[in-house]
Amino acid sequence: MTTHDMNRTVATDDMLPLLQTGLQAVENAMYNVVKSDVEVLRDASTHILSAGGKRVRPHLLMLAYLACGGTDVTYAAPPAAAVELMHTASVVHDDINDHGVVRRGRPSVNAKWGRTFALLTGDFLFTAVYQLMAPYGDLNKLLAEAATALVEGETLQAHAVKNNEFTRENYARIISLKTAALFQSAGEIGARLADTTEDIAEALGNYGFNIGLAFQIVDDILDIVGDEETLGKTSGIDVEQGRGITAIENTEGADIMDAIKRKLLSGNRLEEARQQAQAFAEIAIEQLDVLPDSYAKTELADLANKVINRNK
Amino acid sequence: MTTHDMNRTVATDDMLPLLQTGLQAVENAMYNVVKSDVEVLRDASTHILSAGGKRVRPHLLMLAYLACGGTDVTYAAPPAAAVELMHTASVVHDDINDHGVVRRGRPSVNAKWGRTFALLTGDFLFTAVYQLMAPYGDLNKLLAEAATALVEGETLQAHAVKNNEFTRENYARIISLKTAALFQSAGEIGARLADTTEDIAEALGNYGFNIGLAFQIVDDILDIVGDEETLGKTSGIDVEQGRGITAIENTEGADIMDAIKRKLLSGNRLEEARQQAQAFAEIAIEQLDVLPDSYAKTELADLANKVINRNK
Repeated sequence: MTTHDMNRTVATDDMLPLLQTGLQAVENAMYNVVKSDVEVLRDASTHILSAGGKRVRPHLLMLAYLACGGTDVTYAAPPAAAVELMHTASVVHDDINDHGVVRRGRPSVNAKWGRTFALLTGDFLFTAVYQLMAPYGDLNKLLAEAATALVEGETLQAHAVKNNEFTRENYARIISLKTAALFQSAGEIGARLADTTEDIAEALGNYGFNIGLAFQIVDDILDIVGDEETLGKTSGIDVEQGRGITAIENTEGADIMDAIKRKLLSGNRLEEARQQAQAFAEIAIEQLDVLPDSYAKTELADLANKVINRNK
Repeated sequence: MTTHDMNRTVATDDMLPLLQTGLQAVENAMYNVVKSDVEVLRDASTHILSAGGKRVRPHLLMLAYLACGGTDVTYAAPPAAAVELMHTASVVHDDINDHGVVRRGRPSVNAKWGRTFALLTGDFLFTAVYQLMAPYGDLNKLLAEAATALVEGETLQAHAVKNNEFTRENYARIISLKTAALFQSAGEIGARLADTTEDIAEALGNYGFNIGLAFQIVDDILDIVGDEETLGKTSGIDVEQGRGITAIENTEGADIMDAIKRKLLSGNRLEEARQQAQAFAEIAIEQLDVLPDSYAKTELADLANKVINRNK
């Protein structure tokens, strides 16, 4: 056994329980911050949180924190919870605009409470993000930028769908903004919470960004090939609304879903997309070279592989 | 002329141009932060900002800052802009839920861009608030609390309307949350930006809170007696949705607007509400006793009077 392996073994013993404690603290932080006196906000928020979700963003943040030498996981938990709730808020509003009725295997908030309360629940989750981050000084700048990017990405997507302007270039811009920016902030915030160097913080931001791109491409692939039971959300919505992993230009309105499916499932478009996701995951893993070996570093590399190999 | 009067005269010479510079900086901060690359977000945000609005919240914040000895009005401008944009975001979402088609004398965002883009524009304005506040450390805690309260108040109101549970007690709770909390944060943030004492910061928070209560009561009175042209928004919406300044208990659904009007316009209910607003304005003015005399202090007292005497 080399010294290198020894170090990793020791680190694993330390880090695995720390990670578990940290992820539990993230759950606690999320549930606590949505304990509003206003029943419908508390109920609707708890409904969407307790439906599960992959928690990939807070997991990424927590691993980045540990990989950069952070040890106070309860300190890192509220920002990790904030990143997940930012995603959750956008999901709740997205389901309003898309008329999604199933989310995480349960009725969506709009399906169960109606559009008015779903809109307000999404707003409430945004303010919960703000509550969680408020004590974290300049890190607010990173999450504020990511939040703006997320809304800009969602808007570009809605605009592209409405005007049937779904090109490859548009798609890249949309997923960078709506998904990769928040993953980037998770990586960078995790690193900065551990008081790491500028270079490492930037590398973990890049790691997150590329994981985010890979994640969204795989999400869109699954949206096409997956079925509702496996995905736990209304399948085909993203496609029906004119999203998708490839360019659909000059296709007429109502036929757009068919057209996307034809384009994607014929030839090797899906395979191309899978390869693209793979390439982004590899770029992500390369970013980790700046880190010393550790259990968390290995887990970050594994996360990149899991993201592209998942089936839900 | 007494020394007291002398001091006020000198202070006026200093403070009036500072106030004007500060309010212009607030406008600049608001327009700059909504300059998104995403056209529809930029256009819709600029549309609602350029329609005017009273800017009472940033005005209050800036006066509180000056009254507490602050002199760097460009430093105080971004938080003042954030408070106004928080209000603006809620207005955009409110118009979706209420189907409001006129706001500030123009088509509402949902009337002009549709519900999907109005929802996203409101979200974008929330993130603009976050961008503006991110550099201001612990002051984020104050605005985060106010933001949560605002959404809770809007939710309670929607819930009360839906379930026809509009009581006096509910009304007081709703306006405290949806309006007074943000005014409170404006007063307290303005004071704290000037590095004032705890006592004075708290007093200016209380000033804002009571101004907010008076403001909302007057708003609801105007909604009943005002006409669309004067108000610049779809009049009667707040009443039609079951809101109002007094208790409507056990009234059946469709007749609620008539019932509210009958209750309010018969007898002296309106006069009672006016007196209540007057009382809150007086409590607000009393809070100013902790401040040294100045032009800004006088303006804060005047603001309290303007809020209750306005006709739009």
